Amino acid sequence: MSDEQRLIDSLRAIARHPAARGLADDAAVLPSPLGRDLVLTHDMLVEGVHYLAGDPPGDVAWKLLAVNLSDLAAKGAEPIGVLMGYGLTGRPGWDDEFIAGLARALDHFGVPLLGGDTVAQPHGDARVLGLTAIGQVAPGGAPDRRGAQAGDLLVLTGPVGDAGIGLAMARGEITGPRRLLKAYRLPMPRLAEGRALAPLAHAMADVSDGLLIDAGRIAAASGLAVTIDLDAVPLSDEARGFGEDRAARLAAVTAGDDYQLIAAVPLDRRAAAERNGVVVGRFESGTGLRLVDRTGPVPLPATLGYEHRAG
Amino acid sequence: MSDEQRLIDSLRAIARHPAARGLADDAAVLPSPLGRDLVLTHDMLVEGVHYLAGDPPGDVAWKLLAVNLSDLAAKGAEPIGVLMGYGLTGRPGWDDEFIAGLARALDHFGVPLLGGDTVAQPHGDARVLGLTAIGQVAPGGAPDRRGAQAGDLLVLTGPVGDAGIGLAMARGEITGPRRLLKAYRLPMPRLAEGRALAPLAHAMADVSDGLLIDAGRIAAASGLAVTIDLDAVPLSDEARGFGEDRAARLAAVTAGDDYQLIAAVPLDRRAAAERNGVVVGRFESGTGLRLVDRTGPVPLPATLGYEHRAG
Repeated sequence: MSDEQRLIDSLRAIARHPAARGLADDAAVLPSPLGRDLVLTHDMLVEGVHYLAGDPPGDVAWKLLAVNLSDLAAKGAEPIGVLMGYGLTGRPGWDDEFIAGLARALDHFGVPLLGGDTVAQPHGDARVLGLTAIGQVAPGGAPDRRGAQAGDLLVLTGPVGDAGIGLAMARGEITGPRRLLKAYRLPMPRLAEGRALAPLAHAMADVSDGLLIDAGRIAAASGLAVTIDLDAVPLSDEARGFGEDRAARLAAVTAGDDYQLIAAVPLDRRAAAERNGVVVGRFESGTGLRLVDRTGPVPLPATLGYEHRAG
Repeated sequence: MSDEQRLIDSLRAIARHPAARGLADDAAVLPSPLGRDLVLTHDMLVEGVHYLAGDPPGDVAWKLLAVNLSDLAAKGAEPIGVLMGYGLTGRPGWDDEFIAGLARALDHFGVPLLGGDTVAQPHGDARVLGLTAIGQVAPGGAPDRRGAQAGDLLVLTGPVGDAGIGLAMARGEITGPRRLLKAYRLPMPRLAEGRALAPLAHAMADVSDGLLIDAGRIAAASGLAVTIDLDAVPLSDEARGFGEDRAARLAAVTAGDDYQLIAAVPLDRRAAAERNGVVVGRFESGTGLRLVDRTGPVPLPATLGYEHRAG
């Protein structure tokens, strides 16, 4: 049996939802969710770019699912299912571990695999993985990145910077608590927080590339300026072990891969929003990104976030 | 400006549908089609595997869209939109031509680009492209590949073999009429035929890998045998120029990339089905694939279809 056939057989064992049609049909077919909006996203991972070649394959599967579910979370959506695009590069042992990890991740989030494609890449090429996630949300209930209004508070769902430290650990540059490595390898999409914040928010997005860059994107898309209070940005206890001075905080707000959510919330909904996050800044008329702490303005770092590039 | 940023800007110029949110949001958001079934498919193309490195980039864009729309056609679905996953490999001129071709193809089929992702692949790697197509169909109206019944006719929507000859032309192995090259490079999803046949068919699929292999898959998925009459298989006038003897017909029924549809249609709907296709065989109880012509049984060729493999 070819590697591809073996892989398809193991995917079939996972794809038990009737809409998947046993992965034996041209497409997945399912009833359209009645009176809901559809939310659709497609994110890819490239070996050596978005994950390290030495990362455990099961963790890569988790990340592929999690980064896409995070996009659904950022729109307040509930996942309906996923389709996967999988590049085979002639490492069947890697494939087996990936599929086992994918099965665990799908089970964890209760999301069915509905379909997709497997393709042969030339051996030696960096593996390319893609995933499409489909979700549903109340009609008009998915906040747009472009909807922030002057005066809105910038709300962040939790600590940032953990995954940045975890990445340095994965690269062998530093040692640290295992939970931070896990924050990098097994990011957690904030689905519940997204559903809670969506009805309160004028705009929402996930923090995939770094708090500064992603908050700046909401501001730019909404035609506004945003000011972030560095002292208000939450750090985890484990991250504090690496320092909580300005340098440590600047590292945290420019680190990628944390997958917290950020929302623009009007002042009168502050109390409700704070049940799912912390106020770390404010949108104002104007343009650009400003950083302050208790001492006053803080110069912007040269790099605002983590941009994924091919080696 | 980086190649990636330039590419995203040119995609934004195409993605004018409001559901795409200007490609500036985490996800596409659109109303769920009321009282319809959703049809979802994701197919990938790998350079050197599914298309030739020398193929015109605009034609590759067409093919990426067409092969996915063909999967929707095979379920009788009407396209709603697509999300694209695009691998950048450091050839900006290729990207420009691809995007221009994609814009033309989307316009031709009237399908909006709703979202997707662009990723950097290491330069020198074979490019990987993915596309998710979303369609809609009447509730319960998408025929399953597994639904054929004993006694059903095998209906084919048009000539096969054109793309196989076109592939040999693209490889420089033979010369021939330009329309056959076009059949390979610019395959046409049979959306109208799919919509017409879906209400008549017990099972339907597209012919991507070859008539024998794809008809055999319907039979296997349905727990049936299928017999195909080689003499009944339509060849185009241009293909007949390369011969219409048994060898030519065997080449046609084992060639991939034609993207006709095949349907299992009950006997009493024959006349209606023949408005959109030709009867080329019949499903029966049992298992396996049989080939006949006017002289009687025809031995099966060693290769039943075209399987895409990495070089």
